[in-house]
Amino acid sequence: MSRFSGRVVLVGAGPGAADLLTLRALRAIEGADTVLFDALVCADVRALIPATARRIEVGKRGHRPSTPQDFINRLMARLARGGATVVRLKGGDPSMFGRAAEECAFLERNGVTVEVIPGITTASAAAAQFGFSLTERETARRVLYATGRTAHGAALDWTTAVDAATTLCLYMGCADIRAIAANLVAAGRAPATPAMAAIDVERPGARLVRSTLAALPDALTAERLDGPVLIIIGQACARAHASDAPELLRRARGLPAC
Amino acid sequence: MSRFSGRVVLVGAGPGAADLLTLRALRAIEGADTVLFDALVCADVRALIPATARRIEVGKRGHRPSTPQDFINRLMARLARGGATVVRLKGGDPSMFGRAAEECAFLERNGVTVEVIPGITTASAAAAQFGFSLTERETARRVLYATGRTAHGAALDWTTAVDAATTLCLYMGCADIRAIAANLVAAGRAPATPAMAAIDVERPGARLVRSTLAALPDALTAERLDGPVLIIIGQACARAHASDAPELLRRARGLPAC
Repeated sequence: MSRFSGRVVLVGAGPGAADLLTLRALRAIEGADTVLFDALVCADVRALIPATARRIEVGKRGHRPSTPQDFINRLMARLARGGATVVRLKGGDPSMFGRAAEECAFLERNGVTVEVIPGITTASAAAAQFGFSLTERETARRVLYATGRTAHGAALDWTTAVDAATTLCLYMGCADIRAIAANLVAAGRAPATPAMAAIDVERPGARLVRSTLAALPDALTAERLDGPVLIIIGQACARAHASDAPELLRRARGLPAC
Repeated sequence: MSRFSGRVVLVGAGPGAADLLTLRALRAIEGADTVLFDALVCADVRALIPATARRIEVGKRGHRPSTPQDFINRLMARLARGGATVVRLKGGDPSMFGRAAEECAFLERNGVTVEVIPGITTASAAAAQFGFSLTERETARRVLYATGRTAHGAALDWTTAVDAATTLCLYMGCADIRAIAANLVAAGRAPATPAMAAIDVERPGARLVRSTLAALPDALTAERLDGPVLIIIGQACARAHASDAPELLRRARGLPAC
């Protein structure tokens, strides 16, 4: 048990739309004294934070001014030790490239109780929104989640990612896609492998760029990319299509923004 | 647009606990005329189905009597063509080993509008429940989701799964874990790699078996395994621990079963 009455809850906010929060996440937000949120957390989700709760933006974005991780860790610990229920809202799923392990380890070392609430990761949401499945029984038997770079910015070895039946989901890989695509082809993945970029998944203006592994870098150069981009490479994404059916269904159901 | 007024919604029910449904999933269930549910969907989730809705169990479980996929496809199409809003509740995330592509393709070929609502996949929930992260910046840079077998029951080639910095999440791999572990070690993965089995994640009696890649098959032989088992292999799961803190927190918050 903790030595303090406060605690920290790391909450996965999902890819964007507020109605992709879990019920558990919604309850945690509603019960928060203080909410720290990433730059990637959508306005619709922020709107769920109680008016009485303190809001602190702790944005971290590549190539932009960022809040240092150590500052975030110390802030969470200090607030919890002061008795607050602190919710740390993170885009997507905290356990997938969300540095949950680092934050939990720091908090536990400082005697603060911490809980993690999982979130919908962007690849699952992209598959649902764009009408394909990350796996298919014959042609896409595995799914590999990776980022473009290591912690130190070094290039990764892609030789273990070339299996033709693997769907590769590349988070934060847009800046390095040209080198990654070249490395994948050099390692043996077919240049004609279906590839796509899912842009602003479950956010306003969500869109899809369909291409092949070899042609995707040029296709993305032509796009104006400001929000989050997820790249998917593999036979499974050949079925991806920008359907307006779900949007029509949602409107027909008269669902509010949540 | 569809030629029919009915439609089908494939809904990810998540790993077990009803409060890990998304708000979008809850609304879809509440608006259903008919709900088809898998054997893996928990009683707490089934309890959310409106009393006015028709319930049809379409269980498919390995080594047990199953509902044929073709029967499920035809049933969903027939109900939707008759004007019903059909919810197909699937354990976990429909796009991850959930045969969503097959079901969507069949329905679209038959003129039925289909939507997919993503769900929390078991690996994310296991990481949250057992206090670790699927990725860590230095030691676990990638996550690979795989199943124990191919569609035809053939063994998989594991040579692309041996990267020491990859977290391997093995769905439905329990029956074949002895052969898989041997193949992974033969392909070059260290026998001492941390490994675990997450049993009944986010269900009553959820528990954790910690081991190593080499020792996990024997460790699992000693367990009584009835519910779903997720196997995770990689440095990331070295931090896994069966903490009672989240359960205590949930009780402290007085959350209902949902």
